[in-house]
This record gives sequence, C-alpha cells and structure tokens, in this order.
Amino acid sequence: MSVHTTGRQTEESRDTGTRSGRDAILRAARRAFTLRPYAEVTLRGIATDAGVSASLIVKHFGSKEQLFNTVADFGPDTDELFAAPLEALGRHMVLTLVRSRREFQRDPMLRVVFSLGNTDERSLLRDRFHEQVTARLTTLLPGQDNALRAELVAGQLLGLGATLALHPSGAAAQADAEGIADLYAPALQRLITG
Amino acid sequence: MSVHTTGRQTEESRDTGTRSGRDAILRAARRAFTLRPYAEVTLRGIATDAGVSASLIVKHFGSKEQLFNTVADFGPDTDELFAAPLEALGRHMVLTLVRSRREFQRDPMLRVVFSLGNTDERSLLRDRFHEQVTARLTTLLPGQDNALRAELVAGQLLGLGATLALHPSGAAAQADAEGIADLYAPALQRLITG
Repeated sequence: MSVHTTGRQTEESRDTGTRSGRDAILRAARRAFTLRPYAEVTLRGIATDAGVSASLIVKHFGSKEQLFNTVADFGPDTDELFAAPLEALGRHMVLTLVRSRREFQRDPMLRVVFSLGNTDERSLLRDRFHEQVTARLTTLLPGQDNALRAELVAGQLLGLGATLALHPSGAAAQADAEGIADLYAPALQRLITG
Repeated sequence: MSVHTTGRQTEESRDTGTRSGRDAILRAARRAFTLRPYAEVTLRGIATDAGVSASLIVKHFGSKEQLFNTVADFGPDTDELFAAPLEALGRHMVLTLVRSRREFQRDPMLRVVFSLGNTDERSLLRDRFHEQVTARLTTLLPGQDNALRAELVAGQLLGLGATLALHPSGAAAQADAEGIADLYAPALQRLITG
C-alpha cells in the first residue's frame, strides 16, 4: 500500500468521522430538545447520548442556545426537500424523506410535532416551521387555495415521516423507496400542482 | 317556565356536564401520559389540568393504570374512523378527523407520535397502534401491497392531524371540512381501494 493511498484513506476516514460525529450530535440534540423542556437539557447529556465529548459539541455548534437554534432550523432540510422542479417535486420529496431516514436516521421535519402541547421554548420550532416550511411552500405553489394546499403538503410529509418512524420493521421499511414513491407521491404532486 | 321543562333542562345539562367532564379528563390524560413518563404522571395533576376532582377521575376511569390503558386504546376512535363502506372510506376518514378536532378538540390517533423515542410505558401506545390501526387497516384493504398501503393510510391520517394541530389559525382552520376532504380524501381513497 503506497504512502499516497494510506494518506488519502486517513483523510477520508477523518472526514467521515467528523460527519458522523456531527450527525450523532444533531440526532441526540433533536431528541433532547424535543422530548424535554429547554431548561432541563444539558450539553453533557447530549454528549453522552451521542457518544462524544461536550467540547466537541461546542466546537461544532457553539453554545447550548446555538445548538437549540440549529435544531429549530428547518432551512437546510427544506432546501434539500424542495430542490426539484415543481412538476417533479412530489416524488422528489418522498424519495428525499425516505432516504434521509434510511441513510442518516433522521427526518427532515417530524421533530416539529413534538413541540405540540408545549408552550415553552419549543414553540420556536412551530414558529420556524410556519416560516420555513408552510409559508415557503405557500409561495411556491401555483393556483388556488395555495395556503391550504401548503398545509396539506406539510401534513403528508409529516405523516410519511411519522408512519416510517412508527413502523421501523413494517412493510414500508421493507419496501424500496421508489415503490413508496409510486404509492405516495401522486397525491403530493396533485396538491403541489393544484 | 314549567316544572317539566326545568326538570328536562337540568337532566340535559347534567348529561352534558358529565360528557364534558369526561372529555376534559381524557384530553388532560392524553396530554399527561404522552408528554411525560408514566411514573411522573399523577391523577391529581390530571384533575387540576381538567378542572375536576381526582375522585371524579376515579369514578369515570378507575385507577391511574386503567386511565393510561384508556389513553392507549385506539379502538373507539378507529371504530368511528373506519365506519364507512370501503368505497367511501377516504372521505369519511378525513371528515371524521377534522370534525373530531373541531367539535371535541381531539385527534383520533396523533397521540401515538409522542411515544416515539420513548422506550418507557409509552411504547404501549405504539403496540396498540400496530394492532388496532395498522393491522386492522391491513386486513380491511383489498388488493396488492395492502400492508404497505395500510401504513401509508395511517401516515396520511397522522399527517392531517399533525398539520391541523400545527396550524391552529391557518388556512385549514378557516376551510370547511368538505373543502379539506375534496383536496385530501382522493389520495387516501386511492391507497384504500388499491
């Protein structure tokens, strides 16, 4: 094995390590900030759950408040979710959501549901969701009733995420992503196209 | 006002009082048992939230364990939700769900989502949901991929409930139930009919 190859592999695995550490922190932070009130969440608890040091969290995300803001930010997820031409958006959304769960064990927006019934800091998730998901979808959709259709599109995406999470070894878990899209995307597309 | 009329009104308002007291207890119990671990929930806390006495809870529902079992039981809700011929079930489901939220401030099954990420007693909600919603729907649906379609139907219903809860003063909140059904029910119906 040449020095060059070894060097490249080390660099790759370092990148992968950084990414998977970051992902593990984000997953643990999402769990912590949605399941418990803000005041009860500690970086140390998130670090333990993620299997990293608290200082690595600070290095990647800054303070507890900054990490909470990252959790409440639906921008990066919706950028991916909405990144297709309108006429193909339904299918793209379903495939992106299914793959995000399978490849990264995360859902682009299901965490907002856990803010329901809580009037504490978690209401920030609902506010961001309204701005970054519903309002953005509303401006994106052509035709009549676009605000209503945007809410229903958001509903279909939340519902798909919820049912995949609730049936981790069920029929959808066994099905390929394209098969799920065949069944689920046409309805989304009709709501999108109007 | 005759004695007869007064008597009837008193009886009616007593019935209404009983029903609304029972509903308030159930709503408070659903909140308590889904948002907090079982061990942290008290009948006294639920009573305070519902504006009733703890002894009224015992009278209506029995012990804390029995009340938790009532919360985890999706049977009565799905009986209503599934009470239509297959060819009209999609629309019936949407109308039932929207009306349940509007008239009784409750969702037939959204509470199961709050059990996600919790491995404590709340996993009972997921088990019951699998038996009483997904498995029941699977046997109900004709045609191919019925288990997958059942999961997706459950997803669409959970998603509709979630988006209505997340947008309490949004476009869906302003829309009439029939208008929501016009947009949302055809997709459900296609998943049902296969």
